[in-house]
Amino acid sequence: MALVDHTGMKDEEKDTGRIEAFSDGVFAIAITLLALELKIPHSVEGGEEGLVRALVNQWPSYLSFITSFCTILIMWGNHHEVFRFVRRTNTGFMLANGFLLMLVTVVPFTTALISDYLNKAGAVVACAVYGGVFVLISIAYNLLWYAAVKDRSLLRSGVPEQTIRKFTRNYRIGFPLYLLATAAAFVSPFYTIGICTALWVFWAFTMRREGSEATPSKLG
Amino acid sequence: MALVDHTGMKDEEKDTGRIEAFSDGVFAIAITLLALELKIPHSVEGGEEGLVRALVNQWPSYLSFITSFCTILIMWGNHHEVFRFVRRTNTGFMLANGFLLMLVTVVPFTTALISDYLNKAGAVVACAVYGGVFVLISIAYNLLWYAAVKDRSLLRSGVPEQTIRKFTRNYRIGFPLYLLATAAAFVSPFYTIGICTALWVFWAFTMRREGSEATPSKLG
Amino acid sequence: MALVDHTGMKDEEKDTGRIEAFSDGVFAIAITLLALELKIPHSVEGGEEGLVRALVNQWPSYLSFITSFCTILIMWGNHHEVFRFVRRTNTGFMLANGFLLMLVTVVPFTTALISDYLNKAGAVVACAVYGGVFVLISIAYNLLWYAAVKDRSLLRSGVPEQTIRKFTRNYRIGFPLYLLATAAAFVSPFYTIGICTALWVFWAFTMRREGSEATPSKLG
Amino acid sequence: MALVDHTGMKDEEKDTGRIEAFSDGVFAIAITLLALELKIPHSVEGGEEGLVRALVNQWPSYLSFITSFCTILIMWGNHHEVFRFVRRTNTGFMLANGFLLMLVTVVPFTTALISDYLNKAGAVVACAVYGGVFVLISIAYNLLWYAAVKDRSLLRSGVPEQTIRKFTRNYRIGFPLYLLATAAAFVSPFYTIGICTALWVFWAFTMRREGSEATPSKLG
Repeated sequence: MALVDHTGMKDEEKDTGRIEAFSDGVFAIAITLLALELKIPHSVEGGEEGLVRALVNQWPSYLSFITSFCTILIMWGNHHEVFRFVRRTNTGFMLANGFLLMLVTVVPFTTALISDYLNKAGAVVACAVYGGVFVLISIAYNLLWYAAVKDRSLLRSGVPEQTIRKFTRNYRIGFPLYLLATAAAFVSPFYTIGICTALWVFWAFTMRREGSEATPSKLG
Repeated sequence: MALVDHTGMKDEEKDTGRIEAFSDGVFAIAITLLALELKIPHSVEGGEEGLVRALVNQWPSYLSFITSFCTILIMWGNHHEVFRFVRRTNTGFMLANGFLLMLVTVVPFTTALISDYLNKAGAVVACAVYGGVFVLISIAYNLLWYAAVKDRSLLRSGVPEQTIRKFTRNYRIGFPLYLLATAAAFVSPFYTIGICTALWVFWAFTMRREGSEATPSKLG
Repeated sequence: MALVDHTGMKDEEKDTGRIEAFSDGVFAIAITLLALELKIPHSVEGGEEGLVRALVNQWPSYLSFITSFCTILIMWGNHHEVFRFVRRTNTGFMLANGFLLMLVTVVPFTTALISDYLNKAGAVVACAVYGGVFVLISIAYNLLWYAAVKDRSLLRSGVPEQTIRKFTRNYRIGFPLYLLATAAAFVSPFYTIGICTALWVFWAFTMRREGSEATPSKLG
Repeated sequence: MALVDHTGMKDEEKDTGRIEAFSDGVFAIAITLLALELKIPHSVEGGEEGLVRALVNQWPSYLSFITSFCTILIMWGNHHEVFRFVRRTNTGFMLANGFLLMLVTVVPFTTALISDYLNKAGAVVACAVYGGVFVLISIAYNLLWYAAVKDRSLLRSGVPEQTIRKFTRNYRIGFPLYLLATAAAFVSPFYTIGICTALWVFWAFTMRREGSEATPSKLG
């Protein structure tokens, strides 16, 4: 009894706090491990110029590193947004979050895959796998958001329906767009990376602003 | 004296806080390092189809990755549950927690082992080692829980005996089940993975609900 | 409405809190991964003395490890300083922070590069790349600081103009000095490392003191 | 002015908080990376028995992993103890902490070194290097503690002189003992590991109790 009276709300906050901290840890580690895919050119011939050539030839590594880094960063921001509205968790929410984190840890693998195969045979498959994991991640986000809003009791009080509907719409558009990016691999692998790049650029410059707008005016 | 008066309880909370944060860090890193075991197929022949075949042939990697990821996630949840009841630590509790963390960091190694040996000679030994580490982890959990409840002074006030007995029962069943999973390797390596999968699925869908039940009704 | 009234300021603090925690995670992981570049000498001949020689021959690894470790640590301290003044974020600030973190995760790669090439052909290019990333990082810091102070609404109240101008000056000098370190590679690769070392030593012994001075007297 | 009045003490706490969190991150990552040194035996002959033999032959890996894991865990506990007494930082304290963290990240490297060389020529040098890093770490702890207590203004109020002297004595004994462990390598490499093991076992079972004693009775 004392436990409930004394720490009822505190427990809930602590719960979300540890899940956020754990998730942040996984995001931070996954995003930092991306750089491990940048390989040092070994036994280069031709001295200084040889090293320049070897480094320049690794351009698929840099391209895939930047694309994945920025995409994971945006996803972390999204994750952050979801948790801003949530004050409690349940089984469905925890499972969706676990599914999401599992997929995020796979991104360094798919990044290494396109980094290796982008300029050789296998590029189509590599890019389709790369895009496919983002499709799964967008599904995981929708499951997470659905678990959060389905039963309004997980949300903080006072979140207006309008804001929820807006975020529901925003999360839904990720799925078809990443599906398009995946399908585009079969036309040209660069289309996949181009669409993924366009997506993080778009979200980087819009999402945050929407959040800010939402807070003072929409909730006012 | 001032230290005790001024920060007595705060110190205790901070103590648990840093141990939780450190443990969360270890769990988060171990779970993310699992994905490093997913290897990029190198020097694949046969172009796009060759890469598809090479990726598909790595199915033991994916299977062991998913099994280990979900199991560590459940274990993290368990760890979280234990700490919800604890407000102080002592030597025994710290040692049990250290033993647990050491074993958790070993899981990426045993995962890589089954990932390498699942479809070749050595699968029995690899799966027995994999299951064996989970047996040790279940022992570590029982030691941790025993250290927490043996001397009731480590617990928050107001935790009913009924709840403690319930959790004691729950932690005890892990040991024989993982022992079974380990022994099953000598029948078929897939039995080990099958039992481990069944366990995390079962716990994912039940544990949390029990926790929720416990909080409002059992403690009410 | 309740959300704004109830958690208005708390939300803001939490916002910065999670960004700091995430950034700290990336800094901590990047700084720890540096040590992965220290390689074990394999198949050494000549017994005990052979191992001593092999370890001594790896001196470029140790030199680059120490330089990079200390530089990242100073950068983390800088990051910390910026966030001491900030209580809210906006798009520009988030993008600058993301750009900064991306570059920080690249430092283990450039460190491995100079570690491999410092005593062979390629040293000039390796050191120029190493210095070049620090040039980009100093740009990222200036962008971050500019985003923070441009619109004074991101800052905590009561930060005097004088302090802001002082920090603006401090962040600006990093750029030309790292540019010099990069250019110096073309004279001698050791100049790059020497200048980078001089910089972290200088900042380690001055920056903190300035911060302390600033707090009681300048803001008093 | 508002900044000082409003957040004077809070800033200080936040300062220590981020340094603790960053340090915890480095400790957690370093301790988890130790397990990366456990290698999967590749291309083993002799089927199941061959894998058993190959795994058993890796016993130096397991021994060095356990020794290093437990030693880092004890060091983390020590670090924690120091910060319990500290409420502010200065340049010297930050530098000592940075030096300590740098050495902690090196432990996975020295662990891999003894893991590779323990049962072949090179064991003496490997163990001397392994012990030598712990000697440096014990120096770092003494510097950290000295920086903390030299100027009593870094400490929380109300810490009795008696407690400070006790901790000063405790930190001092690490240095000669690790020096002994290092020198012992030249007699037998196993002496180094034996002494290191004896040390963490001793500290695990005593340190914490002393802390507990200190809190209620010594400070009462």
